Amino acid sequence: MTLTMYERIGHEGRRPSPFSWRIRYAFAHKGIEPEFRLVRFADVDTIRRLSGQHFVPIVTHGDRVIHDSWNIACYLEDEFPDRPSLFAGPGGRGLAHFVNQWAATTLGAAIRRLIAADFVLCLDSGDRAYYRSSREAAFGCTLEDYCADRPRWLAEFAAVTQPLEQTLAAQPYVTGDAPGYADYILFSVFQYARLGSPDEFLAEGTALRRWRDGLVQAFDGLGDRYPGYPVRR
Amino acid sequence: MTLTMYERIGHEGRRPSPFSWRIRYAFAHKGIEPEFRLVRFADVDTIRRLSGQHFVPIVTHGDRVIHDSWNIACYLEDEFPDRPSLFAGPGGRGLAHFVNQWAATTLGAAIRRLIAADFVLCLDSGDRAYYRSSREAAFGCTLEDYCADRPRWLAEFAAVTQPLEQTLAAQPYVTGDAPGYADYILFSVFQYARLGSPDEFLAEGTALRRWRDGLVQAFDGLGDRYPGYPVRR
Repeated sequence: MTLTMYERIGHEGRRPSPFSWRIRYAFAHKGIEPEFRLVRFADVDTIRRLSGQHFVPIVTHGDRVIHDSWNIACYLEDEFPDRPSLFAGPGGRGLAHFVNQWAATTLGAAIRRLIAADFVLCLDSGDRAYYRSSREAAFGCTLEDYCADRPRWLAEFAAVTQPLEQTLAAQPYVTGDAPGYADYILFSVFQYARLGSPDEFLAEGTALRRWRDGLVQAFDGLGDRYPGYPVRR
Repeated sequence: MTLTMYERIGHEGRRPSPFSWRIRYAFAHKGIEPEFRLVRFADVDTIRRLSGQHFVPIVTHGDRVIHDSWNIACYLEDEFPDRPSLFAGPGGRGLAHFVNQWAATTLGAAIRRLIAADFVLCLDSGDRAYYRSSREAAFGCTLEDYCADRPRWLAEFAAVTQPLEQTLAAQPYVTGDAPGYADYILFSVFQYARLGSPDEFLAEGTALRRWRDGLVQAFDGLGDRYPGYPVRR
């Protein structure tokens, strides 16, 4: 049965979606190469017809259509139990679910305050107006105003990432001795920052930087397979 | 070999330490009943002679002296592998370490802003002056000033606990279908708030409240074995 992953494509081949990155890494971890269908925000009708909602990634497996990255990860784990586990046991699955929520509400929110105004350039030029208007409606201000108080949001980022830095100073991966889906969830958010901004937010010599750079290189350099931020500051 | 747990005792038999509560629950999970030695802040010389540092809990097992609650949990897991696992697999252990750091830097800090000024009454009367002076030196202000902007700290608490609420709305425990050490870490911080303040911070009908109240009743009502907050508002 064919596995197909619908993934957002950005400006000149870029891959801007953190939710797609974590599923890319989940597939690589399982040693499975899906077929890819590249979509833009402008393809929302196709996405909706397929899945009944408008977010990517979406994975189809034969007749089955799975959306929401957490559901996709659990589907891959349960459907391919003989491949390397994404969760390393039932406790790892339960706690990865907490990490998934924390990445959305806390880590992702902190990073969005740092990159939202820059990120628009990673998108296909036809998607930028939609991104700007939908986010500005959600934030209640322009992207630039949303990110304006940079010292405040850098301090917030430092506070939010502190428990990750402490964990990674004590063990090589968040999941333990080997990477698991919780690492890919978190990595995908740092990857979103790395590809979505001209700035580097992780200081050299930190455990977070060592961990992130290692995961960029994992799976034959998967994290560097597509172009980086379009312009240098 | 005798297992002994050194635990802080508070005002008229209270047990005020979140770090001791999580180890209490870890012992209960393993089905092991240690001997207890009850200490106060005033017993710092005894603690230091025993362990080379001044925090409790401390566990001794024959000649071995283990301090830091995370180390104690790992010790119990590794020393009693035939008893129910605290981590439910290697991924559960790795991610519980992250939860341990998050509970200290983020959840615990948010709750301290709500209860620090009230908490002093849970301590043995001989320990209160030490608690106040050491915390006020660390905070750079009085306990009352530290907690003064209550609307701000209630909003911070709501934001910090959001990923926990979302996780517990989707599964019965943070560790998954059954409680594990990550649940006890987090529970211990809510227990510290529950016993350390006259206020209830978890609204009825929330997943967090259901989870916390369930853990209070676990192990024959372990969470209610000692007196609650000394006064009612």
